Amino acid sequence: MKEKEQFMRRAIELSIQNIKEGGGPFGAVIVKDGTIISEGVNRVTANHDPTAHAEVNAIREACRKLDTFSLEGCEIYSSCEPCPMCLSAIYWAHLDKVYYAGAKEDAKAAGFDDAHIYEQLSLPASKRDCPSEELLGEEALKAFNVWKASNEKVNY
Amino acid sequence: MKEKEQFMRRAIELSIQNIKEGGGPFGAVIVKDGTIISEGVNRVTANHDPTAHAEVNAIREACRKLDTFSLEGCEIYSSCEPCPMCLSAIYWAHLDKVYYAGAKEDAKAAGFDDAHIYEQLSLPASKRDCPSEELLGEEALKAFNVWKASNEKVNY
Repeated sequence: MKEKEQFMRRAIELSIQNIKEGGGPFGAVIVKDGTIISEGVNRVTANHDPTAHAEVNAIREACRKLDTFSLEGCEIYSSCEPCPMCLSAIYWAHLDKVYYAGAKEDAKAAGFDDAHIYEQLSLPASKRDCPSEELLGEEALKAFNVWKASNEKVNY
Repeated sequence: MKEKEQFMRRAIELSIQNIKEGGGPFGAVIVKDGTIISEGVNRVTANHDPTAHAEVNAIREACRKLDTFSLEGCEIYSSCEPCPMCLSAIYWAHLDKVYYAGAKEDAKAAGFDDAHIYEQLSLPASKRDCPSEELLGEEALKAFNVWKASNEKVNY
């Protein structure tokens, strides 16, 4: 447990340091075999990238370092409960486990309303705030047919 | 409608071209005031980045071009219904509307099971496949307190 707390303290330390460097109050580290292999902080406004959350940045960096698109065998320590974008990225990256410190209620009180997006995702598309519309569905099937017939496809 | 179909045909064209270039069968374009300002394709396995979906790449590129972290006033055309990571990114980026061609059922039949992640997100954390554990919650509050007291914070 002491080792886990050290990893989390590093994620929290990153989150505080990042505020001083013009970023949001979030940090994350990814650990494999007891060693930190990547660190990430929230650079949304600083880098003009709405996807630059701490967890996403840590995942990108870990994949660069390990030269892979799968982080099986790794765990992520985040200074706050992941938002739905980050949690989905954690699934796509096949991370083994999430440790988090701050609760999403704390994030909300600080102005980050992840809960709203969680609610939106659980609604049918027709009931979401952001409207969506199907267009040329039949034409899109061609891409999947080319994909299924391709010998070079890599599944993930 | 004809203009909208042109944008979607471009997204579909990108998705097919991308398969030949070693990527996944997904493409997206972002449009502002009737002009395409960015394009994205799925480079997950090609670039070793699990977050490099077509929509995420198009969002990052649009923000770089417009030098902003908010895409209010823009619409995204995706060759397939966005996965929960991409839909969350669309919310964080404040896009006005989503047009999609392929349905998530088509994506599933081609081996991309976004529906599983949608289901996981709607479950309480304790019931998800990817386990999560709270650790040092009290210590994390410090970051939010520093944030709330900061004069330099930029909300998004």
